Amino acid sequence: MPFGGDLTVNDRFLAIDWGTTNRRVYLVDQAGSVLDTFRDDRGVLGVGRDGGPAAFADEVAAIRARLGDLPVIAAGMVGSQRGWALVPYLSCPSGAAQIAGALYEVAPRTWIVPGLSDPRGDVMRGEEVQLLGAVHAGLAPPDALLCQPGTHCKWARMEGGAVASFATSMTGEMFALLKQHSLLAEFLTGPVADGPAFRAGVAASGDGALLTALFGVRASALLGLRAVEDSAAHASGLLIGSDVRGAGVGPDSDVYLLADPMLGALYTAAIAQCGGRAHLVDSHAAFVAGIAQIWSLVRDR
Amino acid sequence: MPFGGDLTVNDRFLAIDWGTTNRRVYLVDQAGSVLDTFRDDRGVLGVGRDGGPAAFADEVAAIRARLGDLPVIAAGMVGSQRGWALVPYLSCPSGAAQIAGALYEVAPRTWIVPGLSDPRGDVMRGEEVQLLGAVHAGLAPPDALLCQPGTHCKWARMEGGAVASFATSMTGEMFALLKQHSLLAEFLTGPVADGPAFRAGVAASGDGALLTALFGVRASALLGLRAVEDSAAHASGLLIGSDVRGAGVGPDSDVYLLADPMLGALYTAAIAQCGGRAHLVDSHAAFVAGIAQIWSLVRDR
Repeated sequence: MPFGGDLTVNDRFLAIDWGTTNRRVYLVDQAGSVLDTFRDDRGVLGVGRDGGPAAFADEVAAIRARLGDLPVIAAGMVGSQRGWALVPYLSCPSGAAQIAGALYEVAPRTWIVPGLSDPRGDVMRGEEVQLLGAVHAGLAPPDALLCQPGTHCKWARMEGGAVASFATSMTGEMFALLKQHSLLAEFLTGPVADGPAFRAGVAASGDGALLTALFGVRASALLGLRAVEDSAAHASGLLIGSDVRGAGVGPDSDVYLLADPMLGALYTAAIAQCGGRAHLVDSHAAFVAGIAQIWSLVRDR
Repeated sequence: MPFGGDLTVNDRFLAIDWGTTNRRVYLVDQAGSVLDTFRDDRGVLGVGRDGGPAAFADEVAAIRARLGDLPVIAAGMVGSQRGWALVPYLSCPSGAAQIAGALYEVAPRTWIVPGLSDPRGDVMRGEEVQLLGAVHAGLAPPDALLCQPGTHCKWARMEGGAVASFATSMTGEMFALLKQHSLLAEFLTGPVADGPAFRAGVAASGDGALLTALFGVRASALLGLRAVEDSAAHASGLLIGSDVRGAGVGPDSDVYLLADPMLGALYTAAIAQCGGRAHLVDSHAAFVAGIAQIWSLVRDR
């Protein structure tokens, strides 16, 4: 059932950033301030395994019992086939008004934010709230390149405060695949941090032969050309360097990064090495600003 | 114990292409003709699990009992840490004379061919015999670019009939990782063959953002932009296209391919799409020509 007109006006609401493996819940007031928040591992996969749509309704009832009997807006994989209900993607370009107009009422006083699609062949669920919120809160300009590193790294081009286009790179998943399942695995046990090995990887990513450079991680360790404990940082530099270059970052690019401190430091270093400038944005603050903006558009109409 | 001078002159010899999971054994006469051959799954991993060096000696005794009590020359992963004995790599550039001079006598009348290393950070074991043999048999010119597609695709630059330099791309392993362990896995169930989906992948590989293009395989299937049954062929085109471009293949490149028919067809199509010309070389004939050349250099001195 798409969004109807039966919203109760409320001073406060509950926002859920409901991802695949984790979720974060916020109690937000009318001004967009967070009054309470908690994070747990009741992500979509965990809840879905326990019993389909009814399990999601039970989860929301438990959240209301804990934080208040308030309207709920949820974003993320909760709107996917594995989630509570399959909410159709909204096509780019899309801003907060389009998203607010396409909220999906999955239960009384309970809405799911639609994900976005890029017609060139890309999808996101949940990241769009952070992107819009970063601009709405003044943490990034209305026309900017935003980057959300992670398992699937999103690069979004914002225009006039809306998401104009975006592309996803499987950077984090690739590193995990190599570390867990590949012939490189035994060499990828060292720490990953910015430093000479990481930067050599970023530099080598400029050669454009990623599949060859990755095999070289193993060969260089076998030949004693690189210490085994440096191999993981080098591989990370290759992947993040490829990601940053593939996104077109070059001299004088400005990139607004929504990242945890570790990935934020790695991407900042790689972006600087490619001649660009990285600006760190608080992704929790961006999410709350984005969901509060969407809620205000719904509440006020 | 490196090669000594106690070789028995013999009309015939046994050659073993002893890889990680399989091996192929040839009974070869003085003229380099194959009198008998068999292939089985007694690769290095299988034999090594059953009991270290003694198990390899038992395997060779069984081969001699079957094909004749003859000198044995083995190439491949049998010379690695997981094999019979760790045989040091020979550095490029290296030709048949250097390899013949560095044979490793692992047991009486039993030698292992050393692998090659590229000082820029690459290694091979076994492929060098095919490379040298392809040129020696006149299947490829003495100065040429040779390609051995597979789990780890080798690209070798031959100069004057010797291996001047080479690079390895983890193309086949990457496809297997994606198909078995990644979030793309559920979409990579269709057939892989040359066709529109494969060629679209080769074309898209020219954008240089491989990690993004791979995520797009999933997104395009979710959005209905590409049929799920075409996704595996498309992903294969992305990976092989990246491999071919990363090797520098362009207009008027000639590439001599040592490949099975399926990979040979895919690489031929990708090379042609990049403007190059592929020439198929029989890799079994190349191996036998190479090992016979090495044997003749040892036997005659």
